[in-house]
Amino acid sequence: MLMNHTPNPISSEVYQALIKIRTDAPLIHNITNTVVMNTTANALLALGASPVMAHAEEELREMVGISNALVLNIGTLDANWVASMFSAATHAKEFKIPVVLDPVGVGATSFRTQVARKLLESRAISVVRGNASEILALSGSTHHPKGVETQNTTEDAWGAAQTLAAESGATISISGSIDTIVHGRRNARIHNGHHWMTKVTGMGCIASALTGAFLAIEQDSFKASIYAMSIMGVVGERAAENASGPGTFLPDFLDVLFNLDLETLNRRLRVEIQ
Amino acid sequence: MLMNHTPNPISSEVYQALIKIRTDAPLIHNITNTVVMNTTANALLALGASPVMAHAEEELREMVGISNALVLNIGTLDANWVASMFSAATHAKEFKIPVVLDPVGVGATSFRTQVARKLLESRAISVVRGNASEILALSGSTHHPKGVETQNTTEDAWGAAQTLAAESGATISISGSIDTIVHGRRNARIHNGHHWMTKVTGMGCIASALTGAFLAIEQDSFKASIYAMSIMGVVGERAAENASGPGTFLPDFLDVLFNLDLETLNRRLRVEIQ
Amino acid sequence: MLMNHTPNPISSEVYQALIKIRTDAPLIHNITNTVVMNTTANALLALGASPVMAHAEEELREMVGISNALVLNIGTLDANWVASMFSAATHAKEFKIPVVLDPVGVGATSFRTQVARKLLESRAISVVRGNASEILALSGSTHHPKGVETQNTTEDAWGAAQTLAAESGATISISGSIDTIVHGRRNARIHNGHHWMTKVTGMGCIASALTGAFLAIEQDSFKASIYAMSIMGVVGERAAENASGPGTFLPDFLDVLFNLDLETLNRRLRVEIQ
Repeated sequence: MLMNHTPNPISSEVYQALIKIRTDAPLIHNITNTVVMNTTANALLALGASPVMAHAEEELREMVGISNALVLNIGTLDANWVASMFSAATHAKEFKIPVVLDPVGVGATSFRTQVARKLLESRAISVVRGNASEILALSGSTHHPKGVETQNTTEDAWGAAQTLAAESGATISISGSIDTIVHGRRNARIHNGHHWMTKVTGMGCIASALTGAFLAIEQDSFKASIYAMSIMGVVGERAAENASGPGTFLPDFLDVLFNLDLETLNRRLRVEIQ
Repeated sequence: MLMNHTPNPISSEVYQALIKIRTDAPLIHNITNTVVMNTTANALLALGASPVMAHAEEELREMVGISNALVLNIGTLDANWVASMFSAATHAKEFKIPVVLDPVGVGATSFRTQVARKLLESRAISVVRGNASEILALSGSTHHPKGVETQNTTEDAWGAAQTLAAESGATISISGSIDTIVHGRRNARIHNGHHWMTKVTGMGCIASALTGAFLAIEQDSFKASIYAMSIMGVVGERAAENASGPGTFLPDFLDVLFNLDLETLNRRLRVEIQ
Repeated sequence: MLMNHTPNPISSEVYQALIKIRTDAPLIHNITNTVVMNTTANALLALGASPVMAHAEEELREMVGISNALVLNIGTLDANWVASMFSAATHAKEFKIPVVLDPVGVGATSFRTQVARKLLESRAISVVRGNASEILALSGSTHHPKGVETQNTTEDAWGAAQTLAAESGATISISGSIDTIVHGRRNARIHNGHHWMTKVTGMGCIASALTGAFLAIEQDSFKASIYAMSIMGVVGERAAENASGPGTFLPDFLDVLFNLDLETLNRRLRVEIQ
């Protein structure tokens, strides 16, 4: 049978990375919010990774030590969980484990903003994955986002992302209708996804967790972020075709992620890299 | 094309309120239990509102201050979360933000009963949304419910609701096979819903969260409660037609809620108001 | 109409136990991890039991006292939750309530291993339900599992299960591609299930919760474990036929569990008892 679709070099690269995760099943340690733990774990399993959620001081060093990546998400932070995040970040530096920071709701309160900035200043963070409002707030913009939902486009946050990337050395990965990824002078835009992804809680948190999984098998944080956001966009777009709303979208998303093949990536993925 | 269904004044009113939520996307701050956080957030998103879950003392005042309603749910309470709930209630009074109390499992233990009564005595509460057993227990009935599941009908709790409403000034919204809402001398009964709603965890918690969303756009807590329970009942009834059990019911519920239109409300909604 | 399938004595026994749960709706108290609370509660409801999640010291004695079984799951343990688990175990002994222990991730960190062993030493535990790696780690094997996902077969853990069962007096229930249950000299193997069950977070935790529900209506912990794992396996196998991946599998699992009948058990259940 003839393939309808010409091979796409980026699709092949994303697919090879996916195969590596499915083969290696890297252990991804998440200290994340209580709203999204279940869907995050399910997304990592559907991707082919092994999730673990653990936050007790007594076991953090050991757990980070056996993990291949760490994902910190401040969605339902409090003093105890923040302490766990800082400990885990320290252990990740010690063991040279890559770390993703998801600054959920930064800008909504000064506590969130301070915690996220301090985590970023720890220089343990390889990737910051947030929406445009969060990236604006994290960069010190005086803009005040409304709660945890974004109202800014990734284009609005372009300058903030450049600044943050330069200051922190981290890759800045902004999810939105056009996902935008910035690392040093490199940047990428991904034109996939579906608007229902903003109507399901935790899709951003899933993006952060998947970024952690790709960091576990790809040292270049810019590439790892592109792989993760490419998968998010293509899977989301494809899953929406089966679903009749955001409720059936989530189980469909997990199925499509679990079954994702090269042909689907070739046919759908639209990435610009500069 | 002719509409099969005559316009229903209540349906139109409920629908107008729904449109207002979809347009304004009010921010609903939830301090809720860890069992239902995910489904609660998804239901608020499907309704058109913006959910936020936050409980840290360090950010409560700011978060309540930018929110349009607060929902307190004691399902997995402990001393720290109870302290957060009282702080948040105080801030809500300061900012004149409406508050819903969901007294999950009241009557099962004296701790729950005391906490729920104290929250109600704070006079920050606009609506108490519970099942019949919880309303009976909260009103001081000596009846002992079995855990968190109701075995009483809303009719059994009618007297208790009247007393509680009179004492507290709050609207009492009792979910059951016939939902019953009492505020002062006004009362309403809603004859919608489906028995599978008792077989999915957190449907009551969703009802409370949706009540919060309607309070954010409708000052009359009696009306807001009617709107929320009308939507719950109609959506639940419609979703059950697509589902093959309580598992597929929940994603269907979210889809139907997201896509809900005036015609469906006109055709199905059965409300008595006195 | 003729039945295709000859009656199976074990299926009938499992079905009778299921009917008893659907009739009695026993209250199952869970102190479990924040990843799986929602799915655990939904699985208990779909089975016909009544779930409650509660961990506050202030209400533990009362909550255990009105419960018919207690399920302890250390998946997201920390010092406070561990203290709650020990309190609850003590109250369960006082009230002679059966207890299931799910030693999630034991062996991944020494903290988990110590907590799980101490809980087992409390002699409040009727059943330990884990995967092969967890049972190996709990028995003191020097084997180090990778995170919370098993890589050992139940056959690898056979010796460890025998030793643990003898030392603790508890039933050891190992989930895997062949579920294996050991109590004293008795043992059983269940040849049902589907590999997608390892791709959905919390299926093991659901197995533990269902074991709790069967312990509430069957004093023989070996039998109760067989009933629970039989239901898990048959329902998982049947649900996978409807699903297109692990995402749609979970809602299907709940539907099949809710609608499970004797004919399905007769046709599918494959149990060996020695």
